[in-house]
Amino acid sequence: MSVETERYIERNIPLYEFLDEATLEIIEYNAETVLEEIGVNFVDSPEALERWRSVGATIEGERVRIPRGLARELCKTAPSKFVQHARNPKRNVEIGGKTLVTAPVYGPPFVRDRDGGRRYATLADFQKFVKLGYMSKYLHHSGGTVCEPTDVPVNKRHLDMLLTHMVYSDKPFMGSVTEPSRAQDSVEMCEILFGKEFVQNNTVMTSLININSPLTFDSIMMGALEVFASNNQASIISPFIVGGAMAPVSVVGTLTQVLAEVLAGIAYSQIIKPGAPVIFGTFVTSIDMNSGAPTFGTPEASQILYGAGQLARRMNLPFRSGGGLCGSKLPDAQAAYETANTLNAALLGGVNFMLHSCGWLEGGLVASFEKFVMDADHLGTLQKMGLGVSADENGQAMDAIREVGPSGHYLGCDHTQKNFKSAFWRSNLFDYKPFETWYEEGARDTYSLAAERVASQLANYQKPPLDPEILAALEKYVADKKAAMPDAFV
Amino acid sequence: MSVETERYIERNIPLYEFLDEATLEIIEYNAETVLEEIGVNFVDSPEALERWRSVGATIEGERVRIPRGLARELCKTAPSKFVQHARNPKRNVEIGGKTLVTAPVYGPPFVRDRDGGRRYATLADFQKFVKLGYMSKYLHHSGGTVCEPTDVPVNKRHLDMLLTHMVYSDKPFMGSVTEPSRAQDSVEMCEILFGKEFVQNNTVMTSLININSPLTFDSIMMGALEVFASNNQASIISPFIVGGAMAPVSVVGTLTQVLAEVLAGIAYSQIIKPGAPVIFGTFVTSIDMNSGAPTFGTPEASQILYGAGQLARRMNLPFRSGGGLCGSKLPDAQAAYETANTLNAALLGGVNFMLHSCGWLEGGLVASFEKFVMDADHLGTLQKMGLGVSADENGQAMDAIREVGPSGHYLGCDHTQKNFKSAFWRSNLFDYKPFETWYEEGARDTYSLAAERVASQLANYQKPPLDPEILAALEKYVADKKAAMPDAFV
Repeated sequence: MSVETERYIERNIPLYEFLDEATLEIIEYNAETVLEEIGVNFVDSPEALERWRSVGATIEGERVRIPRGLARELCKTAPSKFVQHARNPKRNVEIGGKTLVTAPVYGPPFVRDRDGGRRYATLADFQKFVKLGYMSKYLHHSGGTVCEPTDVPVNKRHLDMLLTHMVYSDKPFMGSVTEPSRAQDSVEMCEILFGKEFVQNNTVMTSLININSPLTFDSIMMGALEVFASNNQASIISPFIVGGAMAPVSVVGTLTQVLAEVLAGIAYSQIIKPGAPVIFGTFVTSIDMNSGAPTFGTPEASQILYGAGQLARRMNLPFRSGGGLCGSKLPDAQAAYETANTLNAALLGGVNFMLHSCGWLEGGLVASFEKFVMDADHLGTLQKMGLGVSADENGQAMDAIREVGPSGHYLGCDHTQKNFKSAFWRSNLFDYKPFETWYEEGARDTYSLAAERVASQLANYQKPPLDPEILAALEKYVADKKAAMPDAFV
Repeated sequence: MSVETERYIERNIPLYEFLDEATLEIIEYNAETVLEEIGVNFVDSPEALERWRSVGATIEGERVRIPRGLARELCKTAPSKFVQHARNPKRNVEIGGKTLVTAPVYGPPFVRDRDGGRRYATLADFQKFVKLGYMSKYLHHSGGTVCEPTDVPVNKRHLDMLLTHMVYSDKPFMGSVTEPSRAQDSVEMCEILFGKEFVQNNTVMTSLININSPLTFDSIMMGALEVFASNNQASIISPFIVGGAMAPVSVVGTLTQVLAEVLAGIAYSQIIKPGAPVIFGTFVTSIDMNSGAPTFGTPEASQILYGAGQLARRMNLPFRSGGGLCGSKLPDAQAAYETANTLNAALLGGVNFMLHSCGWLEGGLVASFEKFVMDADHLGTLQKMGLGVSADENGQAMDAIREVGPSGHYLGCDHTQKNFKSAFWRSNLFDYKPFETWYEEGARDTYSLAAERVASQLANYQKPPLDPEILAALEKYVADKKAAMPDAFV
């Protein structure tokens, strides 16, 4: 069976410009003040400090103070958009400008499914998620750590994860960032898959570099960034903020810190290699002041997403935020309200790369199989919404209105016959049946329908073809690397 | 116990302008062409045809053809906003401009709750919904036919429904539209509740006048409109469209028909009484071309909502659309995805009066108790989002960023202590507990939490005080009216 995947979204609709010019200017001014007067810490990396000194920053211990305007100036060499190549060229994605590329959940140590409940994730789970991602029509990207394969030693996981993305899917994927050496392994495996010269001339990975908010850059993440940037591979430079804990409890204050952090991080990437592809990242949730739990799909999170998108566009940079974020423990109504709020904001807020588009549950602690297919289906609403509308003669449909007239019915008219197939988005998961049919078939809720879809998709999965020599070389690389290291579990 | 209700939303945020100027002009031009060349039918009402003839329309049978520009000119006397009074003046709502007023589901013949399943609605159900609405913090309006009390004869239901809204709540409500005589009863009951003079000088009801799309106005709805308009009471003039059946399968074509219908309907209201308060209504869903079922929360429905909002603003009229619309049979994830999509579009699309804000299930066939409290809670996200953000000194939070610095923690800082109570919206229903607590407490999903909330709200409900003389007079009016009519069940 053939797998159909839609091309990445190219928005043919306006964006939602939430903040006014005056507020944006205040944020931009204050972010420069933060960099100049407070500064940022680059931890455990004398080389990073030396690099900053060489471009004109003031260093005091691990604190880097950046003169007003310098970071923004350095960011100007970053491209406004770039192509990430997939091994199947039809799956290449363009990131930046009007595009929106969807990628699955990243990072959960646990998985959940309806029958097995919540448990630590394994490599077998990881492989299942990559298969589901490959089968998902509206998912453009295979992602990275879709779940943590906790049954594989920590220092070897990245090899199995990369091999899985490369073999079980032909969509683009992410590299490892948990050690600079693992970033290097990612590059080397890509050189086997794509060819060494191709990798040096093209972007084949987009990887996630988190900032330790507030205002702190650690040497592991920066080391991985250095590997990727110097190899022309893309990085998302992303503050990771639970508002109220890692940033002020105000939208404008949080955006100020986000911008200061992204300016410093992207500037650093361009010091490493001018022109290296990067993405302005923003992961912000709010906190429930009663329980201390992070909350998702809240108004403040949407406001920050909209504002951050505007700040990214003013820097002419690709933007990452959003996703199917939720705090719920189950793929229930709470999960869906919160997820839909975030997905809507991401589409209208100009997100170009949307990590966590599907499968995210319980604040990112859990990758849910059912939620994965629910969200992946619902991404189709963004794809259709992004097409915008046509006002040409067919779109105006005046002939149809004339033909049908008052009190008539459109189902049989010519215009309907010509256009109905593409006129309305329909879910491939939701229940649209008459009540009686639905009731007789077991009165299933979305969770149950999703569990059935997970099973049927996995049953129908077929690997995309891969050159056996490349496959053998990748497997040998992984085996050799594993053999050369003792297992480590922390 | 005191019941807290937030004031209606006054948006301090920009709207989402979806369609460009050229497309809006095409739609406006084509809508005039529809009125001029195709026309609309006013059925079974020689008086309506005579009124149209008197202002310059061409009449042929029941077909009314309206010269280009005439309907729009007639609409100009309609106010851009109006106040609907409640018997508790704190609950008055302003409809139009930047405001958003939320009202519950309207019209379902069935109800559903978790324990009782799906069944025909009764007056007891109706009363429970009005109580829940009264207790709902983010619900500004008590609505109208929250469900059909099918155990009361058809010709007497409106009396019990109005009495329930008047006695069990002190929020504003809607009048009856199922017969002109019932609209008249609504006015008379309001005269008892508010005083005759007050009603003649103020708007105390907003009622729902549906258009029989395509392009048809029936004498019952128009008769109710005539009663309300001539008494200075507000009407929502609303096409009711399942796209593909009652309008073309294109967004621009549907908007053209919507605009033509609203122009004719509002113009007619202004012929009856220039200055009568009206609302530009739009209820549009799409259709699933596989099953023929109406679908909700789809991209096309959002696109039509956004476009219709723009058309209403260009006429300087209040706008009704949106709501917690969904097609799901249960308050599950499908229901919440679809509902959240519609609620988000309604906030950003400029809806002023949002019928069906909570409780809507199964395409409007069912009023769900659990979904009512789920949606009513989630309306708080619109309320908070609509506040916008502050960029004053406290909003900028530079002192907090200075105080905390790199690698610090914001939970204890002064700014957080001063602002945390109002900083982040929190649900009063969703689960924010640690996994272990949630698991030990029964691993409940949103449906279960909502069922508990329904029970606790009904247990805590207390009637708002009402002058015993007014209550007695209302009860006597209802008893006399009922005694004067034989029961009718169709």
